[in-house]
Amino acid sequence: MLLGIDVGGTKVALCVGELGGALRAQRTVPMQLSGDARRDVAHLAEVAREVVAEAGLPLAEIEAVGVSLPGPLDAEGARVLNPPNLPGWHDVPVRDALRDALDGLPVQLENDANAAALAEWHFGAGRGFRSLVYLTMSTGVGGGVILDGRLHRGRNWSAGEIGHTALVWDGEPCFCGLRGCVEAYLGGRAWARRLAQVAPPEGRVAELAGGTEHATPVQVVQAAKEGDAFALQEIGRFNGHLAHTLVNLTFTLDPDVFVLGTIVAAAGEELVLEPVRRLVREHLWPRIGQGLEIRAAELGKRLPYYAGLGAALSESPSTEASSA
Amino acid sequence: MLLGIDVGGTKVALCVGELGGALRAQRTVPMQLSGDARRDVAHLAEVAREVVAEAGLPLAEIEAVGVSLPGPLDAEGARVLNPPNLPGWHDVPVRDALRDALDGLPVQLENDANAAALAEWHFGAGRGFRSLVYLTMSTGVGGGVILDGRLHRGRNWSAGEIGHTALVWDGEPCFCGLRGCVEAYLGGRAWARRLAQVAPPEGRVAELAGGTEHATPVQVVQAAKEGDAFALQEIGRFNGHLAHTLVNLTFTLDPDVFVLGTIVAAAGEELVLEPVRRLVREHLWPRIGQGLEIRAAELGKRLPYYAGLGAALSESPSTEASSA
Repeated sequence: MLLGIDVGGTKVALCVGELGGALRAQRTVPMQLSGDARRDVAHLAEVAREVVAEAGLPLAEIEAVGVSLPGPLDAEGARVLNPPNLPGWHDVPVRDALRDALDGLPVQLENDANAAALAEWHFGAGRGFRSLVYLTMSTGVGGGVILDGRLHRGRNWSAGEIGHTALVWDGEPCFCGLRGCVEAYLGGRAWARRLAQVAPPEGRVAELAGGTEHATPVQVVQAAKEGDAFALQEIGRFNGHLAHTLVNLTFTLDPDVFVLGTIVAAAGEELVLEPVRRLVREHLWPRIGQGLEIRAAELGKRLPYYAGLGAALSESPSTEASSA
Repeated sequence: MLLGIDVGGTKVALCVGELGGALRAQRTVPMQLSGDARRDVAHLAEVAREVVAEAGLPLAEIEAVGVSLPGPLDAEGARVLNPPNLPGWHDVPVRDALRDALDGLPVQLENDANAAALAEWHFGAGRGFRSLVYLTMSTGVGGGVILDGRLHRGRNWSAGEIGHTALVWDGEPCFCGLRGCVEAYLGGRAWARRLAQVAPPEGRVAELAGGTEHATPVQVVQAAKEGDAFALQEIGRFNGHLAHTLVNLTFTLDPDVFVLGTIVAAAGEELVLEPVRRLVREHLWPRIGQGLEIRAAELGKRLPYYAGLGAALSESPSTEASSA
């Protein structure tokens, strides 16, 4: 039995779940940011105890606690450094604070993209594969890399920051301060910035959004489904950049499956998944493209609960000796 | 005690070495391509027996045999599929044939780039690190990815084909048939093609090469060391593309160290390594760039021997269950 906690900027999703994914109790509460991170963590622990009680279990029956939360984390996965959307949180020892508040239960932190990758791997579209790359394209672009049955975290707990690989060297400015990042082309915030400039003011996207300055990928997807030419062209551009990203990951990691969240899952097979599969195959050697799976994420609105459980199922980074 | 065999298009390097890297016997012989791959492999086994005898050991004292050879390999690492520079070799069961010819010793095959990565990790510039990405830029561009103390091979034994990640989507044609590959910008053959077009016919590079049509990166490096403006500009272009490649790998894998072979090792600190380190740092978040090592490969001419030993030290791909 696992306890999952997904900490977002505005909401916290908590659940008690079985290894197989069945939820025994679940609750979503507003994230209370008191300005004192220590107090915020203590509050999380209180709500967590309530959810465990709701599941009809003593706390001691929980085997592991997983916490999905906005990164960056420190290189030991013990502390949350300075997430932009958790004001007042700076270098917070969440792992040990929660462990102490929960009678010494083992607590595993993961950044939200890694936790989502684990969730789709254990409970969603990636079940049963050995190697998976997860990409989510919402406001920003996040990723998680699971290789040979293990989450790959990297030296700074920053592997999988695929949103900041450079699609175009010194290309479009990214909100992260760098240029040409995948996120500057595929991220929702960057796409909205572009739409404010290029969407036809009298077009369908502008109409749906109530003005080009309010346009987001949501309206582009809807207008494209209606057959709007501008929207279809924008989706084509998105598909090309996404295919480029997946081709690079394939030649680097040769994974079994890509699991694509958010916009891709919303846009669906015809608009995005099929064209992207075709573009990716065209840009790989046949031997490598054959059998490569490209799938939409499955968990949708249930993701926060499973992200917490996914984090609980992630092993701690091993520290065994490496080379001979 | 390990037996290493490095099979190239023209030469085979064999050695008997200790786990720590000390060589007990070594020999380089011409690669005999009879047109019959089965006979070629039997010949390799004969020479291998001689080298073991030369080391003063009975065959039974060899713990593992490693074979580095041109890819592609099949997904089990048992067969060599169709290396362009091994005429007559098509789908050759090298692993089992060598095992049978060597009294049942365990034999591990690796493609040459993966074997070189293992060699630099165990015996060269990557010693002691947990995660390493190796890149070699000679005629083509090869790579190997070692993560958390294990070679990552991927679904088709094709992870680390970093030379064919797309630096520019639909960019310069690559000899592999795709476009915009890293190899189309950083590979020696592609660079020579470019030099034939852009090198000044009266310039220093053409002079050193005996004509622009014979120019290769070797003359560019030499002319750049002499201060030639065109050559320095070419090196600057190379450095930019290399930095782009390393930035993308860092945001994806967050490794401890990059080990760069061939041209980079030849060009050295001032021309390539220092400028590339600076460019990479400028294109990463400070938190991620800090402490990232970018090093020249160390093994140089000894690489073939150590590539065989590296392959011998690589564990077989594990087949343990993956997801819950």
